[in-house]
Amino acid sequence: MKTLKIIKIGGNIIDDGKALASFLSQFAQLEGPKLLVHGGGKLATQLAQKMNVPVQMNEGRRITDKDTLDIITMVYAGKINKTIVAQLQANNCNAIGFSGADGNSIVSVKRPAKPIDYGFAGDIKQVNTKILEVLLHHNITPVFCAITHDKNGQLLNTNADTIASELAVGFAKHFKTELYYCFEKNGVLKDITDENSVIENINTETYTRLIDASIIADGMLPKLNNCFHAINNNVDKVCIGKPDMLFKTHSLYTTIQK
Amino acid sequence: MKTLKIIKIGGNIIDDGKALASFLSQFAQLEGPKLLVHGGGKLATQLAQKMNVPVQMNEGRRITDKDTLDIITMVYAGKINKTIVAQLQANNCNAIGFSGADGNSIVSVKRPAKPIDYGFAGDIKQVNTKILEVLLHHNITPVFCAITHDKNGQLLNTNADTIASELAVGFAKHFKTELYYCFEKNGVLKDITDENSVIENINTETYTRLIDASIIADGMLPKLNNCFHAINNNVDKVCIGKPDMLFKTHSLYTTIQK
Repeated sequence: MKTLKIIKIGGNIIDDGKALASFLSQFAQLEGPKLLVHGGGKLATQLAQKMNVPVQMNEGRRITDKDTLDIITMVYAGKINKTIVAQLQANNCNAIGFSGADGNSIVSVKRPAKPIDYGFAGDIKQVNTKILEVLLHHNITPVFCAITHDKNGQLLNTNADTIASELAVGFAKHFKTELYYCFEKNGVLKDITDENSVIENINTETYTRLIDASIIADGMLPKLNNCFHAINNNVDKVCIGKPDMLFKTHSLYTTIQK
Repeated sequence: MKTLKIIKIGGNIIDDGKALASFLSQFAQLEGPKLLVHGGGKLATQLAQKMNVPVQMNEGRRITDKDTLDIITMVYAGKINKTIVAQLQANNCNAIGFSGADGNSIVSVKRPAKPIDYGFAGDIKQVNTKILEVLLHHNITPVFCAITHDKNGQLLNTNADTIASELAVGFAKHFKTELYYCFEKNGVLKDITDENSVIENINTETYTRLIDASIIADGMLPKLNNCFHAINNNVDKVCIGKPDMLFKTHSLYTTIQK
């Protein structure tokens, strides 16, 4: 079985042109099948402000009304996705951009309007990897934005961490799958003010204790839930840290274990 | 050799939600390998106005400065492309959206700044059909927006008619290729005010005479030049007319011949 690396990058890299270019040139050189998932960064919020579309958030999640969905589709699937694909091509990495609608690769269901109406937000119900596998075997690197569809013609805003996790689970039957969440810190930190306090391994048991001790809270909870979803569903390796964890042998990061 | 249908649709269909939905439901049912190329319509101009980005045109062609390229990338590759792909999926047509950067499928060179600086406008220099052929053989329908790249990381605004023509020429080695330009009229008209005055066949000789008689002028000239480029480079069939030419047996349209 070949190893497939699934790598998710977020706003901290996407919003910084130099950081993005540097990441992509290193990513392009990674050997073997690989797949990139990107979040949105600040661009969507900036465009919404320019267009006088109010940005509504609830507990860190965007409420996606019709106008916001248009903005997200333009920014995520248009500007960011095509910029990344073009830069990968310049680095001789043959990439193809995807939303979940493309190749019917990720089918979601619109989140129920109660208790909170998130609008056009999608929860993933099915991942179809067949055509992606064909492309991977032809040395193509799929690049996913955080948009899915409901197979009835509706695009849906979907969490990029969840997309990465569900794709990893979907591929785990056919590849030895590794999932890397790149973010702005060295990993899960014991002390949020100390970049060297990385917890190198977290398993189901220590995870519960870290939550009870309030060391893991807020935005890290859904991220870690996505990690455990993957590691508990045949994904071989799940890591969180700076992109260095992919490119340097001696770097600090957090590994999630069963 | 299998027959590949390459179909280009323009603003008149894209700007009209009902017309687009109707076209896509019929397009989805076309048998055999097919590929769709879409223009931009009025959405890019509307977004530019909302964002206070001046729209500059020269002889009907958009001058693409940096802000305009961003807008075009968001609208063409984002909003329009993903809307079409999601609607095709709803009609059980398994589509994947493409710019020329995706799969390195269309490489352009930035148009020289003299005599007129069109900004980030690309003239096609290479079409790579290999990965598209793989997808077509897996029953995937590629959907192209009018954006290409220069293989050095730069996206470029590129005429959709030209993209359709160059793709048709590129595929002609591997498929019996048919190229259909859908637009708002029944075909090339002898009298622009009479929808029934369709010239059913135009060849190189009659084309020259129609230009000399000023029956073909303005925007029809580049469109017909794209038609002749295709028919003179091994494309099997080239037609211009309303989408009916694809779906109805008794409809008027213009066929281009050598």
